[in-house]
Amino acid sequence: MTTSIQISKRAQGLTSSAIREILKVTERPEVISFAGGLPSPDTFPIERMRWACTKVLDEAPQAALQYGPTEGYTPLREWVAKRLSQNGATIRPSQVLITTGSQQGLDLLGKVLIDEGSKVLVETPSYLGALQAFSLFQPAFSAMETDEDGIVTDALTTDQLAGARFMYCLPNFQNPTGRRLPLERRKALLEKAIAAGVPVVEDDPYGELCYSGDALPSLLSMAPENVIYMGSFSKVLAPGLRLGFVVAPEELHGKLVQAKQAADLHTPSFSQRIVYEAVQDGFLDAHIPTIRTLYAKQCQLMLAALERYFPSEASWNQPAGGMFIWVNLPEGVDSGALLAKAIEQNVAFVPGAPFYAVDPQSNTLRLSFVTVPAEKIEIGMQKLGALLKTEIAALPERNAA
Amino acid sequence: MTTSIQISKRAQGLTSSAIREILKVTERPEVISFAGGLPSPDTFPIERMRWACTKVLDEAPQAALQYGPTEGYTPLREWVAKRLSQNGATIRPSQVLITTGSQQGLDLLGKVLIDEGSKVLVETPSYLGALQAFSLFQPAFSAMETDEDGIVTDALTTDQLAGARFMYCLPNFQNPTGRRLPLERRKALLEKAIAAGVPVVEDDPYGELCYSGDALPSLLSMAPENVIYMGSFSKVLAPGLRLGFVVAPEELHGKLVQAKQAADLHTPSFSQRIVYEAVQDGFLDAHIPTIRTLYAKQCQLMLAALERYFPSEASWNQPAGGMFIWVNLPEGVDSGALLAKAIEQNVAFVPGAPFYAVDPQSNTLRLSFVTVPAEKIEIGMQKLGALLKTEIAALPERNAA
Repeated sequence: MTTSIQISKRAQGLTSSAIREILKVTERPEVISFAGGLPSPDTFPIERMRWACTKVLDEAPQAALQYGPTEGYTPLREWVAKRLSQNGATIRPSQVLITTGSQQGLDLLGKVLIDEGSKVLVETPSYLGALQAFSLFQPAFSAMETDEDGIVTDALTTDQLAGARFMYCLPNFQNPTGRRLPLERRKALLEKAIAAGVPVVEDDPYGELCYSGDALPSLLSMAPENVIYMGSFSKVLAPGLRLGFVVAPEELHGKLVQAKQAADLHTPSFSQRIVYEAVQDGFLDAHIPTIRTLYAKQCQLMLAALERYFPSEASWNQPAGGMFIWVNLPEGVDSGALLAKAIEQNVAFVPGAPFYAVDPQSNTLRLSFVTVPAEKIEIGMQKLGALLKTEIAALPERNAA
Repeated sequence: MTTSIQISKRAQGLTSSAIREILKVTERPEVISFAGGLPSPDTFPIERMRWACTKVLDEAPQAALQYGPTEGYTPLREWVAKRLSQNGATIRPSQVLITTGSQQGLDLLGKVLIDEGSKVLVETPSYLGALQAFSLFQPAFSAMETDEDGIVTDALTTDQLAGARFMYCLPNFQNPTGRRLPLERRKALLEKAIAAGVPVVEDDPYGELCYSGDALPSLLSMAPENVIYMGSFSKVLAPGLRLGFVVAPEELHGKLVQAKQAADLHTPSFSQRIVYEAVQDGFLDAHIPTIRTLYAKQCQLMLAALERYFPSEASWNQPAGGMFIWVNLPEGVDSGALLAKAIEQNVAFVPGAPFYAVDPQSNTLRLSFVTVPAEKIEIGMQKLGALLKTEIAALPERNAA
């Protein structure tokens, strides 16, 4: 008998992220890729990181290279709690768990909160990595209606909320749509969730990247005992460190810590200390505006190119922050088929369908504007616009008309 | 209604590691702790790490700080594959997944291989972190009989093997017992597992720490297509980087990669590159012998102290490597109760019971000898020996006699 590996039921449904597969194709240097979800490496504060590394290895080398507490490096937890204590809310360090990227927070939440068949409310579309992480624990997703402002809180019914283990949302410059939930809807969302006893998971990797108008208060600051907040250093410092955090009421925090211990014992001591040193003396408050300025400029370039080259049948949003623009195509245009043709012309984007937990809309796509140089945005969007016009012209109903 | 957090069934059974809880007590500087599973910080190659950090940040800062592939940094995967290609076996880089510590490998294996109620064969006792990681996925553990040489392969029956999802073992200087599986038993174990079609998971964090006699061939090298191998840089370089790896047949590797993507996207690019640079030019082959020399000396000190201070009713093994000695106490002595008294005298160890998946033996304990200075080993063991003699003298059967 040969060794036979039997895969668990939960893992049989696993597939590689469609985006990761596309990214492999787009690694060829000739491809102009709007597909990535990567921050621009031009924003990485290399000198500061070098300085922080040296400081950590000079001052506490043994501690930085040794095992550490599962909860995370205490001074970093204190720093996170202080930074999130906004709008009159007080966040306690005892609520903070440092995670190996905020993706790990999603895995831990899935482990600790989802049983097979548990109802989990998600936006539609939503962050693919969250859908993947939760799916492993076999929930029943229930999609909350969204429009160009995000979750349509008026459409949230008591029935839909009833019995949900949690509601997962990205109120700021959501991946994939770039949308931001307005203040009135934030209030309404919390009101309904609290009335129904449903915890709200606020995933906020892009909140600091607001480059148009004022930042809106976090759901956490509006209802600190009802919200589980997830943050990340990936978009404001560097993703290669894999450093994020989950803030939760102490009761849940304890369970998350236990699950984290089984998952990887703790987040690397070395990177936690480096990041802690790097963010001292208000470094982020000086650094983040440089990221905002770059991304705002890139966003404007892409919006102008969309205006110039895309057909009038397509529509898109005007993000006030973040890294993404979401494009709606006419019914009948399949962005997956469009991608295949685009790649032949060395242009890439991400089709929208994988971002839907239910009822995928294949006439949508996501564009990232942050890493592509100006002249390539121009060329890439021109090609994409032309392809799209051809696709639309070939639609059966057009030909029938 | 207030927000009510409902914990999943799998997480309800989670408890914090007994060891972690003890370690919190033993952080007081006056405590002589034989409880830790931490490598000695004196073995951390700080200069080499500083050099490697500088090299990475000089030569590839943007790549080191950017997102990377889920499988891991390709040159590091190639290095691991080459290093594990021993005894005529060839390991392919395509089999290697870099993990956030080898603890993450356990979590991924649990996710991908265990359904509720799946039979999983484990040594008794076994590594607590593995039992915790697997337990989240609710397997039915089946304990393989062990003696002072590890798994008793003669006692492994076809019935016990039948239908097992995998067999988990630590053939080299097992945590907690320090035992090593002899070559003949390695052969017999593989023969039986292969005949029954059961994959063997070989967890090998201590394999390089062999300081007495020759190293034995890994199970992986003896049956590369039937063994899933887990390794770590924690004991040979530094644990604070959280860097390990899982080697698996490509079919399983693919599923592990998908699960890893959902768990934390990828292991930090920065630490992968640092470790890759650090291990170049045969660094480990020069560095590991210095660890072996230190640990061998520490081990001898503790064995001598055991001989000197422990009562004749206790027995223990003579490890040929690793970090631990396992002590068997007379029936009726509860090492948990002993610990409480020891801590009052500022001495700590780990009681043996939590290491048993089934039928915990409370008259056992684990001693780590690697981090305690010579004079403190002497003092600590003297106190512990005296306490133990008092406990034995107070046993009911003694008093009855």
